[in-house]
Amino acid sequence: MTTLYISPGACSFAAHVLVHELDLPIQVERVTLRTPDSPIWRINPLGRVPALQLDDGTLLSENVAILPFLADLRPGTPLFAPEGSVERAQIQSWIGYLASEVHAAALRPLNRPERYSADSAAHPGIRAQARVQLFKAVEHIDRHLTGRQWLVGERFTIADAYLGVFAGWIGRIGEEFDQLRELARFREAYRARPAVQRAAAAEGL
Amino acid sequence: MTTLYISPGACSFAAHVLVHELDLPIQVERVTLRTPDSPIWRINPLGRVPALQLDDGTLLSENVAILPFLADLRPGTPLFAPEGSVERAQIQSWIGYLASEVHAAALRPLNRPERYSADSAAHPGIRAQARVQLFKAVEHIDRHLTGRQWLVGERFTIADAYLGVFAGWIGRIGEEFDQLRELARFREAYRARPAVQRAAAAEGL
Repeated sequence: MTTLYISPGACSFAAHVLVHELDLPIQVERVTLRTPDSPIWRINPLGRVPALQLDDGTLLSENVAILPFLADLRPGTPLFAPEGSVERAQIQSWIGYLASEVHAAALRPLNRPERYSADSAAHPGIRAQARVQLFKAVEHIDRHLTGRQWLVGERFTIADAYLGVFAGWIGRIGEEFDQLRELARFREAYRARPAVQRAAAAEGL
Repeated sequence: MTTLYISPGACSFAAHVLVHELDLPIQVERVTLRTPDSPIWRINPLGRVPALQLDDGTLLSENVAILPFLADLRPGTPLFAPEGSVERAQIQSWIGYLASEVHAAALRPLNRPERYSADSAAHPGIRAQARVQLFKAVEHIDRHLTGRQWLVGERFTIADAYLGVFAGWIGRIGEEFDQLRELARFREAYRARPAVQRAAAAEGL
């Protein structure tokens, strides 16, 4: 059986939401991260989630691949768009932006400054600058959401399933992020979805 | 006419290679980056390349969206794989890995430490740690390439068009990166492709 490996509250939450949104026959397995005895090391040599193990043992990693793959298990789903369409590319573009500019380039130095300098005296400065970069990156999304319920095409798509993860994290940072009203509205609409509530309950969030 | 905005030697080189590989009727326009008067600001408010402007004015950004979109202009091309296939997801996964783990998480702090700390005394430590992260990220690729000519499916795909950019950059860092022999072999095979040579000549590289 296809198995999705997740860690509660991690960015694997987006794929977990899609399992419920699309009612996919996929087993969801929790793993711990960054512990030497976690089973994730056996599944994914990079030790990361989400990791999707297919029936034949093939491993897929990276949200930019897993989220489209899950949607394509339900051809014609409104959560994605037809091959070759501009909407499909726009959905893929937002997923890429979230993975690179929001997660890797801003949230990672904010949460794990030790990966950006071996000198712990540099960590407060790295976290402060990461917060500036994160604000710029999500302000761009907040502007885009003005007058829109969802990122692309006036319907919930796999890009929104992914944005919801970061909207949740950002909602807990406070201060300057509280002024991003469109993102706050998005967060409420995301949390109201039954599939999001089922995934959150299953992760104990 | 569809226009691809690039900057010579930037990560937009992958999309430029695809214009030649796929013989696409797309105009390629050079822009400068990080200069206040660059026309890129008018095209892409984030000021980044690659940026693909479609006939109707729609802008697409992010390599994880642009590279698949260009391939889908030639349905059935061996440079990509059918919708819903595992190979398509594997190609997309490598593109995501390169964009996040290699470019955003490692090459960016190596080349632009000022984006990671306002304190210039911290920059040498940030660059040193970024070099460690970069080595880990590309060592994973080097291992994967053992016994393989290309990343996925024993043929050149859009993931290889993108890896070629980073293989080139990494080849100039020196020292520890010189031991990555599979990546060096990949770099030679990439540079031997006529489409790569045409794109390089057009960018004046």
